[in-house]
Amino acid sequence: IIVEKVLELLKNNQQLSGKRVLITAAGTREPIDPVRYIGNRSSGKMGYALAEAAAVRGAEVLLVSGPSNLAVPPGITVKRVETAAQMRDAVLAEFDNVDIVIKAAAVADYRPELPSEQKIKKSDNTLTITLIKNPDILRELGEKKKPHQLLIGFAAETQDLLVHAREKLIKKNLDLIVANDVTLPGAGFNIDTNIVKLIHKNGDIEELPQLSKKQVAEILIDKIYAMMTKST
Amino acid sequence: IIVEKVLELLKNNQQLSGKRVLITAAGTREPIDPVRYIGNRSSGKMGYALAEAAAVRGAEVLLVSGPSNLAVPPGITVKRVETAAQMRDAVLAEFDNVDIVIKAAAVADYRPELPSEQKIKKSDNTLTITLIKNPDILRELGEKKKPHQLLIGFAAETQDLLVHAREKLIKKNLDLIVANDVTLPGAGFNIDTNIVKLIHKNGDIEELPQLSKKQVAEILIDKIYAMMTKST
Repeated sequence: IIVEKVLELLKNNQQLSGKRVLITAAGTREPIDPVRYIGNRSSGKMGYALAEAAAVRGAEVLLVSGPSNLAVPPGITVKRVETAAQMRDAVLAEFDNVDIVIKAAAVADYRPELPSEQKIKKSDNTLTITLIKNPDILRELGEKKKPHQLLIGFAAETQDLLVHAREKLIKKNLDLIVANDVTLPGAGFNIDTNIVKLIHKNGDIEELPQLSKKQVAEILIDKIYAMMTKST
Repeated sequence: IIVEKVLELLKNNQQLSGKRVLITAAGTREPIDPVRYIGNRSSGKMGYALAEAAAVRGAEVLLVSGPSNLAVPPGITVKRVETAAQMRDAVLAEFDNVDIVIKAAAVADYRPELPSEQKIKKSDNTLTITLIKNPDILRELGEKKKPHQLLIGFAAETQDLLVHAREKLIKKNLDLIVANDVTLPGAGFNIDTNIVKLIHKNGDIEELPQLSKKQVAEILIDKIYAMMTKST
């Protein structure tokens, strides 16, 4: 009986064997000039934890990462990008070949319209930067999504969390959205814990307590496995 | 004779004993909203190498650092800041108590005039951000500088390096400026080497070859020691 249990555990542990998972992580940088950029506080911790959790369960993981100082967990292929446009190219190049996409990256919504080729010198008292919209990668993926593919997004908000997250889930044709209020202590950027709500396509909401990002990643991978087995 | 040489070396090694050195490092972040900021590519490597080199020579080192993932070398007091305004406060609070200031940080020249308290939602096709000038910390230090104090600045440029660097040296009443063209391969941000020119108050220019940032730091500390002994 013990042997059977161990075998069952080992098998469970490899639930995602044969599955290809694309995970995006960290923030993008949009150049203002060769020295300055518009950045985002995302550290990449949530995305890297997800990549590790998926790899441990046997998935083949491709991590598309913005600038981050985190170590890439073993057995994971990483593609490094800087801007939202580069992230879009990297993600679209792989989308048709993967079963699951988890977009944990904080992609810049806007970029400077005309980045300066030279360092902008300090002269005038004010400086105006015009930003234009970046491509909406998640929306594009939602439009291209095939029935066998699962698309999971994140919503980091500072107000009206559930309203914004639900809207994003529907607009972008996601299967699940992970919503977190980044203003809460114990949630958000550059710390090791998170407090998230999982919103499913059918409207179900699961509120998780404050957990380590590694624990959140484990739970998310469990949910994704359950969604996969339900839909097949 | 060997013992004498060793003693001399050990003594030389503690050249900065009794001196207080303030070093700034890394870039500042100027918030656009709770999630986004204007950042700078400075990694902090040059400033942290200088802090270590000064501490090894016996100086009491205070490092004022913008966000950086680098390890603080042993024996160094670090004060962490995020914005240019916070860096100004930290530096001015200590300026009267130090003998040498090396400003290796890349401080944002401009900041968003009105950072949004909530995450800006993606709605309009364009977004305009108005930036206003940050306080010029180096210039303030140059104005306050006492005869016994040495003030060393950096100029990271993408064109007209010597013109811009000399202008900065004079305008800000510096004793020495370290100029580097960040577009050169082997120089600039987030790499371990640098190619710098040292411009002295008297107009002398020393061009250093491509060196590790640690080597550049050693040479700079040597120059500073020479300047100190000459001026007393």
